[in-house]
Amino acid sequence: MACCGGCLCCHCCCNEGDIRTPEELTILGETREDDDDEILPRKDYESLDYDRCINEPFLEVLEGLDNKKARKYEAIKWILVFAIGVSTGLTGLFVDFFVRLFTQLKFSVVGQSVEDCSENGCLALSLLELLALNMMFIFISSVLVLIEPVAAGSGIPEIKSYLNGVKIPGIVRLRTFICKVTGVLFAVAGGLFVGKEGPMIHSGAIVGAGLPQFQSITFQKIRFHFPYFRSDRDKRDFVSAGAAAGVAAAFGAPIGGTLFSLEEGSSFWNQALTWKVLFCSMSATFTLNFFRSGINFNKWGSFQLPGLLNFGEFKCTDGDKSCHLWTAVDLAFFVLMGVAGGLLGALFNCINKRLAKYRMRNVHPKARFIRVLESLLVCMVTTLVIFMASVTLGECRDLVSTINNNTSTQGSVSEEVNSTIRRFFCYNNTYNDMATLFFNPQEVAIHQLFHQNATFSPVTLSLFFVLYFFLSCWTYGVSVPSGLFVPSLLCGASLGRLVANVLKINFHMQIYSGTFALIGAAAFLGGVVRMTISLTVILIESTNEITYGLPIMITLMVAKWTGDFFNKGIYDIHIHLKGVPLLEWETEVEMDKLTASDIMEPNLTYVYPHTRIQSLVSILRTTVYHAFPVVTENRDNEKEFMKGNILISNNIKFKKTSVLTRAGEQRRRCQSMKSYPSSELRNVCDEQVVVEPAEEGQDMLQQMLERRHVPYPNLYPDQSPSEEWTMEERFRPLTFHGLILRSQLVNLLIRGVCYAENQSSASQPRLSHSEMTEDYPRFPDIHDLDLALLNPRMIVDVTPYMNPCPNTVSPNTRVSQVFNLFRTMGLRHLPVVNAVGEIVGIITRHNLTHEFLVAKLRQHYITI
Amino acid sequence: MACCGGCLCCHCCCNEGDIRTPEELTILGETREDDDDEILPRKDYESLDYDRCINEPFLEVLEGLDNKKARKYEAIKWILVFAIGVSTGLTGLFVDFFVRLFTQLKFSVVGQSVEDCSENGCLALSLLELLALNMMFIFISSVLVLIEPVAAGSGIPEIKSYLNGVKIPGIVRLRTFICKVTGVLFAVAGGLFVGKEGPMIHSGAIVGAGLPQFQSITFQKIRFHFPYFRSDRDKRDFVSAGAAAGVAAAFGAPIGGTLFSLEEGSSFWNQALTWKVLFCSMSATFTLNFFRSGINFNKWGSFQLPGLLNFGEFKCTDGDKSCHLWTAVDLAFFVLMGVAGGLLGALFNCINKRLAKYRMRNVHPKARFIRVLESLLVCMVTTLVIFMASVTLGECRDLVSTINNNTSTQGSVSEEVNSTIRRFFCYNNTYNDMATLFFNPQEVAIHQLFHQNATFSPVTLSLFFVLYFFLSCWTYGVSVPSGLFVPSLLCGASLGRLVANVLKINFHMQIYSGTFALIGAAAFLGGVVRMTISLTVILIESTNEITYGLPIMITLMVAKWTGDFFNKGIYDIHIHLKGVPLLEWETEVEMDKLTASDIMEPNLTYVYPHTRIQSLVSILRTTVYHAFPVVTENRDNEKEFMKGNILISNNIKFKKTSVLTRAGEQRRRCQSMKSYPSSELRNVCDEQVVVEPAEEGQDMLQQMLERRHVPYPNLYPDQSPSEEWTMEERFRPLTFHGLILRSQLVNLLIRGVCYAENQSSASQPRLSHSEMTEDYPRFPDIHDLDLALLNPRMIVDVTPYMNPCPNTVSPNTRVSQVFNLFRTMGLRHLPVVNAVGEIVGIITRHNLTHEFLVAKLRQHYITI
Repeated sequence: MACCGGCLCCHCCCNEGDIRTPEELTILGETREDDDDEILPRKDYESLDYDRCINEPFLEVLEGLDNKKARKYEAIKWILVFAIGVSTGLTGLFVDFFVRLFTQLKFSVVGQSVEDCSENGCLALSLLELLALNMMFIFISSVLVLIEPVAAGSGIPEIKSYLNGVKIPGIVRLRTFICKVTGVLFAVAGGLFVGKEGPMIHSGAIVGAGLPQFQSITFQKIRFHFPYFRSDRDKRDFVSAGAAAGVAAAFGAPIGGTLFSLEEGSSFWNQALTWKVLFCSMSATFTLNFFRSGINFNKWGSFQLPGLLNFGEFKCTDGDKSCHLWTAVDLAFFVLMGVAGGLLGALFNCINKRLAKYRMRNVHPKARFIRVLESLLVCMVTTLVIFMASVTLGECRDLVSTINNNTSTQGSVSEEVNSTIRRFFCYNNTYNDMATLFFNPQEVAIHQLFHQNATFSPVTLSLFFVLYFFLSCWTYGVSVPSGLFVPSLLCGASLGRLVANVLKINFHMQIYSGTFALIGAAAFLGGVVRMTISLTVILIESTNEITYGLPIMITLMVAKWTGDFFNKGIYDIHIHLKGVPLLEWETEVEMDKLTASDIMEPNLTYVYPHTRIQSLVSILRTTVYHAFPVVTENRDNEKEFMKGNILISNNIKFKKTSVLTRAGEQRRRCQSMKSYPSSELRNVCDEQVVVEPAEEGQDMLQQMLERRHVPYPNLYPDQSPSEEWTMEERFRPLTFHGLILRSQLVNLLIRGVCYAENQSSASQPRLSHSEMTEDYPRFPDIHDLDLALLNPRMIVDVTPYMNPCPNTVSPNTRVSQVFNLFRTMGLRHLPVVNAVGEIVGIITRHNLTHEFLVAKLRQHYITI
Repeated sequence: MACCGGCLCCHCCCNEGDIRTPEELTILGETREDDDDEILPRKDYESLDYDRCINEPFLEVLEGLDNKKARKYEAIKWILVFAIGVSTGLTGLFVDFFVRLFTQLKFSVVGQSVEDCSENGCLALSLLELLALNMMFIFISSVLVLIEPVAAGSGIPEIKSYLNGVKIPGIVRLRTFICKVTGVLFAVAGGLFVGKEGPMIHSGAIVGAGLPQFQSITFQKIRFHFPYFRSDRDKRDFVSAGAAAGVAAAFGAPIGGTLFSLEEGSSFWNQALTWKVLFCSMSATFTLNFFRSGINFNKWGSFQLPGLLNFGEFKCTDGDKSCHLWTAVDLAFFVLMGVAGGLLGALFNCINKRLAKYRMRNVHPKARFIRVLESLLVCMVTTLVIFMASVTLGECRDLVSTINNNTSTQGSVSEEVNSTIRRFFCYNNTYNDMATLFFNPQEVAIHQLFHQNATFSPVTLSLFFVLYFFLSCWTYGVSVPSGLFVPSLLCGASLGRLVANVLKINFHMQIYSGTFALIGAAAFLGGVVRMTISLTVILIESTNEITYGLPIMITLMVAKWTGDFFNKGIYDIHIHLKGVPLLEWETEVEMDKLTASDIMEPNLTYVYPHTRIQSLVSILRTTVYHAFPVVTENRDNEKEFMKGNILISNNIKFKKTSVLTRAGEQRRRCQSMKSYPSSELRNVCDEQVVVEPAEEGQDMLQQMLERRHVPYPNLYPDQSPSEEWTMEERFRPLTFHGLILRSQLVNLLIRGVCYAENQSSASQPRLSHSEMTEDYPRFPDIHDLDLALLNPRMIVDVTPYMNPCPNTVSPNTRVSQVFNLFRTMGLRHLPVVNAVGEIVGIITRHNLTHEFLVAKLRQHYITI
């Protein structure tokens, strides 16, 4: 079960889902159940559509396209991608600059006050100063999130869902961007245990989604015909690039960023796109790098500061040849640390999940300001802990440690690391280790743990870990923009440093403490987020040391496997809690016992190629489906039906013309080859000159134009026919011709695309591709339609606007194949079509979620 | 046109293809034309099949599978992947060890002789020594390639083709592995301008393909039921992993290796696979690392030597704060160098292409030993050039250069770099710059160019570049295993160093020469191979300096764009010359003017669900198709046909049962839900209790079992019916039910899977999945079949063994969508099925090659 494989701490609560009967589960899938442990994917999330829909309006655009225009379009994409990278880099710069400013201000004021007060005993005053500043910052941050609630949290679950193909309202809006960026700035400055990296990724994604759209709106103003980026497919590409740029800016890891967007988002490998994404990431990293080098060091033109977060240089002192960053022996400890990281990460996730559920039940339904109060409470507690721990719990350690005189790392204590120690109440070349960790920005604390050669006392490290663990766990989920990377790294690093201390002092091993701190950080972070490839690469790039590849990878692998034994990664948990119908990478092997027909939705609401406005409006108003199959009926006695009703005959005629047969195809080829001299090509065709069959019924139809209103019961499939019809009639065979989206139908109705019954369907007005996509991404609703303007007896010919050849599957296709097709091609609707071309059902994302499949599998086991 | 956009030097020869008429081109696609510039994809290459075929034997296996077994299977995959990595690393170690041994031996013997002779004037003797050694080595290498011709060259074109989905005979055999590994060792030791990196990639791929297959053969011996890796799909995964491990071992670039296998091979992003590939790469890198650190430095347990080729550490001296590896100003020069690299690379490719064509026409058709002679000739010339240039063309340069006293790079001359200079005839703290570059292993020369702070004279660098350029161009294609990376890097590095010299001395710019050498190397290599993402990452990892990301990427980008203006990358050129039907990443926009029906193959050879052995054998013997659609006929008067012939009625019966209708599906669901208490679920079904329709004709059939031999003309579709039939009859409608492969049919025949006419088809023996896949990858041929053992009147029921639900497309699907589906899902055959389920054609790889599409598009323009 996905809900939880049983956490360490909440094992008992997880089995409730199992006692439900499968049909109950099936029904539950359609309703929402908030008050329980079993949270099922919500049906109200829409999918994004990554398949290309090539219909007549698009073909008109295509006619005007040649390779030159295609290259121009490609060049514009490159420019946009570059712009996204630069903008994301600048966003990072903005956040970094102000966080640095505010934090320095805060720590210098309060730090000075503490140093002064350590003699006068006015520490309470210092505490009040700190509290006032922090709570002010957090208040601002929290109010910003009230304005745009989706700006809360790290944003990674939302971006992951988006890239997975789920539309989540508001996550790529400009307002979200402003709230997120400003909010995270104040949240970090306010001293909460949050990072700015997750929000950077979200910000990058918004830039990616927004910038090209903004551009194309501008283009439209200046009558530049460029309707390409108005599709989910293009938008997703830019969002991928933006998210990658966010990672790249946050960690100075362009390759890691690219892999992040692949790992979280892409279901397929598109070389051209990946190359652009990497370029975008590079642009972001080096824009940030350029400006930071310029602003912070006044070295314009050089590139010295990789990302917002970097880990500094791990290296042995030059003189010491026996020093290694790590050896084969250390690997065994790294594996153990991976296990520990996995266990602790699982615990973290479990606690955080319970907290999140508690919040969903008790905080979110109440007035919004309650959330602000919660943020302020967290802030107050955090500030108190920081202050108290720094002042009372620290030990004074020698700055040049004497214990490990014999080890190799001596002497490489850089000035930079030592400049950030805190001396609270410690004198004579000693420093306060707890204060150094707590009373500094988190990045500085990480640097201390990675590079400080002087030792931290084991007690300090343990206390620091425990306090940090619980506080950051509490913090993640509070309504401020908050990343999880830095707190997790810091938590893990303290643990790793503790291990290094023990090994060094108690076992006298010759190890490099910084490596252990790094591996600890990786282990805990891996245990919490359970990312694999991208996290490995991000950490390698952050350390700028390729030789850390193996230990980091092994640690992350072990941490993930250990953690997965208990629960899912924190982002997946939050996605699950939101009820997002996320599709995993692949289905379980067992699911192949099911076929497409087992999981499809068999109750269809369909339209005909030619349908009356009356029917369309009624279908659109009474259903919530986002796409409708376009079908014709399979009647043996078509001749009879054709009589008199122009609508019916149009439909039947469409069916006839839409079926390309082998004989017809061969005839076409023969005709097109007649002019060729080559006898080889002709010999296949020269048996007989085929006469085109006369279009039967054409004349008859013309005569019958006046006769109408012949009863045709199933013209209005919406009029809930269940009362009168037998099952055979309700589920009569329907030949599938294409798919039309709700938004397209509404668009056709609003623009009055229809023809009168006594006219030919050719008289219907034609919409251009740009008219079809003009309102992307927010299409008008059917209820916006003014029915008074429409003649309900008019007929709409949807065939030029439908998707004439979506991917389809046969009913006995195995679930893994269906899933693979759906996931890889980024589909939204997958019609299930039988061997003779009749549609029997439709598969959407909701039919492929893990929970749905599990329920269906259980049902399968019961029925066999 | 793909042939060439016109090279610098061979522009005139490239337009011949354009004057052909499209139908000629179409025909040409089926024959081979060697003596011309226009080389079309050969039809005799088979595709690999990456789609999963889930039919009855597989379902039986599936029944026995649960999640526990799936985890076990997963664990075995991890172990195998680790083993592949380790083996590839050991292979690299083997090659490296012996190359190093032989080279050191050679250079120490000859070098000593030269140093001695510089006084005595016996240089001719030294030259003879060198010649003898080199030619001996090259002779061995060349003879090895005679044994297995596919071991020649770098192997990257072959691996790229394989991963693209083309089966190339022999490239993943053990014999190829041995010849390649031993051959490259001697080729490099023999002083040819070849690298060992390309062959490492090929070797890794062979290990990947072979190891799991070997394992599963072993498993079968010990009756371990594990028939999973006997498919193209699994093999491809392991080959990806192996190729990545090869790159990782060659360059110490595990991430680059992973991206290489993605860039060259994968059409989709599979997270689980990528994670394994990265692990495999890491294993390879660190295995090599571990043993090299141990053997070369006697530091067992540390990991200090990343890959076979590494670029050393680029860094400024610690004391100098004004030194930068690169600045924003340098970027402009990098762009110019990228352009130059692109131009030179295009020239290189063009010359090499002409050479290759010359070889194909004049060398390859002749006796094999001619190739050995060519290798020896190249070797002799190369040796002479090396020797002569070293002895006569060098300049003596000061070791601690005095010219750039004011620049920043002073002082960081490492001992290691200086230990490899050559002093030929130079004394008093000077060295011979030409000899230092030529009379050293290529890796050492690269290190010299990257890190030697003393200057090389511009004349030396120019001469070196020119000589190296032409010799390495000549060498690539000679029948020895030969990589192209190192020669290209060395060529480019000398150019970059030249630029640095000019800028430093003539313009007095403060630059870091090593960076310019690196960028020059990247530019030229990029211009030659035109790889993008993976090459960027490989170079970043080889330098172990993340800040080189931007300059390397920009240089590669510019080099690729410049080069693509003239011709394709060297690997693509060689793939093209071999006539491999490679599929690009995507089609051109213009191709969307074509639909599936325009490009499909409409002449089908098909089988029925129940077919007589006679027909099957005849079909298999008279056609070369690798797959056959399984079809039934659409007859209005089925009743009539059913009379008397058990075969026909079986086929018609199959058709009836295989069509799942909505009403039938609904009925099934209602029945399975009858036991549920929930009234909601039942209300959809309670209209009427549906009685299963009696299986009509069943009794009638039983009565008619005796009557046979009713004439049924189209039972034997193979008997070339064109003479008697009209087109309407030949291209009559056929309902598509599945695909069966030639190998499966032969297997069924060989194992005697059939039933007699007077029995039920249930009496047919059943094959298990392992029996079906036992002979993978070399299935028996139809001509191996002993016809005397078969009763030609027996009937084969192929339905349990066919692929019942392959991906299909509708005839009016646009080419880009078809291509995307085919490429992404890794298909081999894509049936084109119309709206009523009739098959109208089939699309294979050959219908999607660029050349075929271009011909079809031109035809399209002519006919409209």
